[in-house]
Amino acid sequence: MYSQRYNLTIRDINYANHMDHLALLNYLHETRVRFLRSLGYSELDVDGNDSGLVVADLQCSYRKECFYGEEIVVLLQLELKSPTRLVFNYTISKNDDVVVANAIIKVAFISKERKIIAVPEYLQKLAKSINL
Amino acid sequence: MYSQRYNLTIRDINYANHMDHLALLNYLHETRVRFLRSLGYSELDVDGNDSGLVVADLQCSYRKECFYGEEIVVLLQLELKSPTRLVFNYTISKNDDVVVANAIIKVAFISKERKIIAVPEYLQKLAKSINL
Amino acid sequence: MYSQRYNLTIRDINYANHMDHLALLNYLHETRVRFLRSLGYSELDVDGNDSGLVVADLQCSYRKECFYGEEIVVLLQLELKSPTRLVFNYTISKNDDVVVANAIIKVAFISKERKIIAVPEYLQKLAKSINL
Amino acid sequence: MYSQRYNLTIRDINYANHMDHLALLNYLHETRVRFLRSLGYSELDVDGNDSGLVVADLQCSYRKECFYGEEIVVLLQLELKSPTRLVFNYTISKNDDVVVANAIIKVAFISKERKIIAVPEYLQKLAKSINL
Repeated sequence: MYSQRYNLTIRDINYANHMDHLALLNYLHETRVRFLRSLGYSELDVDGNDSGLVVADLQCSYRKECFYGEEIVVLLQLELKSPTRLVFNYTISKNDDVVVANAIIKVAFISKERKIIAVPEYLQKLAKSINL
Repeated sequence: MYSQRYNLTIRDINYANHMDHLALLNYLHETRVRFLRSLGYSELDVDGNDSGLVVADLQCSYRKECFYGEEIVVLLQLELKSPTRLVFNYTISKNDDVVVANAIIKVAFISKERKIIAVPEYLQKLAKSINL
Repeated sequence: MYSQRYNLTIRDINYANHMDHLALLNYLHETRVRFLRSLGYSELDVDGNDSGLVVADLQCSYRKECFYGEEIVVLLQLELKSPTRLVFNYTISKNDDVVVANAIIKVAFISKERKIIAVPEYLQKLAKSINL
Repeated sequence: MYSQRYNLTIRDINYANHMDHLALLNYLHETRVRFLRSLGYSELDVDGNDSGLVVADLQCSYRKECFYGEEIVVLLQLELKSPTRLVFNYTISKNDDVVVANAIIKVAFISKERKIIAVPEYLQKLAKSINL
């Protein structure tokens, strides 16, 4: 279980005066990038061999509006769907209220020759241990 | 069937040198806003009574990368799921190749007193005629 | 002297792999918004009478690139140019190196009837005491 | 004289319901990128030798608000300040009214070894002929 906290900034607020969906998506991506960095990797080099990560599917359900200055918590868990398909499951909350539920991003991995490769081993292991 | 064309700009391109998901989501929203405007309404006044539109669920599947300067076409179709739930189904393509498939945004409508209301009649009719 | 710290996120990085100018501008604006909020006001209600703040001029000089994950510090000082014109002077640094110098945003104030009004007194006072 | 037209989209509109400064800056950059592309180059390869363009100074004065759906015209002219310093002068208008005046972006050029180099000759020539 990996989590990050963010304070909503003015850039996150749209003409309807609440958090924009683009801002939300940004925080999902940012959390994934920080998670990979915390393990010594990045989205452009996910395994030390210049392999990359590509997003295949995205899904989320909005439960509550968020406003300027509020703090949100993004929680991240991994799930292994197949040897080549990893799922990032997110929950976003504020003050322990769920703001976004069922946020699911399915990713694949490609070698620098741009062929689909297996989910890197360290991520497979994290997915398994997380699912215990 | 409603469609809009967009040329990808430098703001749409991320550090991996392809179209960002935030940019993609932006074009889905922009197309919905233009569609409502073409009918004389907006997201902040969807029926002439200051009722609003709120996004409940979002889902999409990426098929292909897009790059700076490319033209994408966003196609929009309506589907009525229930008297209070409308679905915007999108397809995004470039040069007749599908770039994003199954892009689905489910929306609800709220009165200015912030109560859930029925899908406005003109949208119900458009959804039905589109489904013929 | 008012200051805020920010960690650069993936949204701040452009296709050239360094901080985008839009991101920089965002942090200047965000710092101004936080400053006004810290005093109990906002850009849409700068004096308790629904008066607003409008940016008239913007200027800045870039000295150094910034990269993903770096922390920047935005320093803000006020300068009163005339009874109706206030200047926000910013310096942006990372690890005590100046990243952006001479960042200057000149603002005016408008009543809710959209007429130019004097700089609110509490901001005039802060500008004076800061200039000592 | 080079010009481009843009329709303001929902992403360009901020919580105050007018065009954001970030959006404005985006259109200045996008116009410069299109201009270089129209000549067969890009910001990451400005001369066919992988030399890059870096923004050194930015300045602009706002004259008028812009709103969703409006069309703006960005006009671009070049001015050579020194053998190593080029200035992009912009004017932004809508319906022949000036929206942004004195928009000035000073740029320098760097070789792939990241040393300052002379302004590429084709840009020097365009700057001179424009100044006639």
